[in-house]
Amino acid sequence: MPNPTCAILIIGDEILTGRTREGNAHHLAGELVKAGFDLRQIRVISDDHPTIVAAVRELSGTHDHLFTSGGIGPTHDDITADAVAEAFGRSIGIRDDARAILAAHYAARGVEFTEARLRMARIPEGASLIDNPVSGAPGFSIGNCHVMAGVPNIFQAMVAGLLPRLAGGQPLLSRNWQMMVAEAAIADALRDLAAAHPAVSFGSYPFVTEGQYGTNLVARSTEPAALDAAFAALQDAFPEGR
Amino acid sequence: MPNPTCAILIIGDEILTGRTREGNAHHLAGELVKAGFDLRQIRVISDDHPTIVAAVRELSGTHDHLFTSGGIGPTHDDITADAVAEAFGRSIGIRDDARAILAAHYAARGVEFTEARLRMARIPEGASLIDNPVSGAPGFSIGNCHVMAGVPNIFQAMVAGLLPRLAGGQPLLSRNWQMMVAEAAIADALRDLAAAHPAVSFGSYPFVTEGQYGTNLVARSTEPAALDAAFAALQDAFPEGR
Repeated sequence: MPNPTCAILIIGDEILTGRTREGNAHHLAGELVKAGFDLRQIRVISDDHPTIVAAVRELSGTHDHLFTSGGIGPTHDDITADAVAEAFGRSIGIRDDARAILAAHYAARGVEFTEARLRMARIPEGASLIDNPVSGAPGFSIGNCHVMAGVPNIFQAMVAGLLPRLAGGQPLLSRNWQMMVAEAAIADALRDLAAAHPAVSFGSYPFVTEGQYGTNLVARSTEPAALDAAFAALQDAFPEGR
Repeated sequence: MPNPTCAILIIGDEILTGRTREGNAHHLAGELVKAGFDLRQIRVISDDHPTIVAAVRELSGTHDHLFTSGGIGPTHDDITADAVAEAFGRSIGIRDDARAILAAHYAARGVEFTEARLRMARIPEGASLIDNPVSGAPGFSIGNCHVMAGVPNIFQAMVAGLLPRLAGGQPLLSRNWQMMVAEAAIADALRDLAAAHPAVSFGSYPFVTEGQYGTNLVARSTEPAALDAAFAALQDAFPEGR
């Protein structure tokens, strides 16, 4: 059975304006590979209600899982929860369980539970909560869409709680073989290797270090035996690598 | 007149498998802001022919410009040029001008001009070339789609050559105001500011440093006078910032 397919949707003008370099998708991509999910797309869009609704509908409809990051805080530009509710045709309002989590979190820290903070208890009808061990305010899953915070340490904590609850597949395994030759010099042999090992995908990634051209060859597969055979053939073909 | 809209399409399994943290879109996003382009979407997809064709058609059809990164090297997984040609209904083959550029580049360095390297002279019919001062092999523009390399220093050099040739609009200006208070504490006042300054967008970005909560408020506008007025109001509203 093929691994479940996924998309990641990053919601945030701060990425599109070049202010912030995206890191949440990179983190989640690495976790998904290990847990046996097939990440097909990452998309970054702006904090715009109709844009979020359309992207959530499209990506949740074409993938087994959709993970979102960003836009669930207390301010006026945090509109993700409302947009996701609309995308799934659900109502949204303050939910008692989310309010209780926030109330306990703030009480334990002597922080006032203000109207703005209460906004973070707005959860679509029928969603299940995603635990936020960092700052209290929960994420949520609705259908196949998992809505998480954009602040990196909170996002990572939510991912750590969520992923074990989802049924993954076979981890994508990879082996790396580095050579100090230009990519073009190994292109023909690599094409032949790829054709001979259809269960393995081969990627080649050129780099320059201290003025020397080099290439990283990466073999990837969910089948350990196929990857072993392909990697042995790769080492035979390019004995100068390491 | 509104600024031209743009999308960035990153083609590369190495991003989706978590191997590489994407940086080209971040670089280009910053350059686009300065040059007066409105970046609406960043999308990362895999090295898969039909996926690239569909994404190029969709994103070039819905934006004034589409910039792509990755997949134009000499190896079997470099399929971007062929996919872009198909998306625009053009034929593709070795082009004399691109071959001449590569021949001169390799001759000057005493490097053999192999069959694999000749593959990088494959350019869609009717495309104009994008200069590659780093490693010779050109990118190209076809219609509103600008196809560039994925290797970061080559990508950046291509962007530097390409952007001045495109007609941009008003640079998006921004001002940052940092406060050591939690985001929720300023949410109401920020909402009022945003409502009072419709030509300015306000973003709030929480952070934690040395255990203290803080918030960066960013005001953005293409209109300098509107931004000045909004930022003055922001400073008045939150005199504790800096």
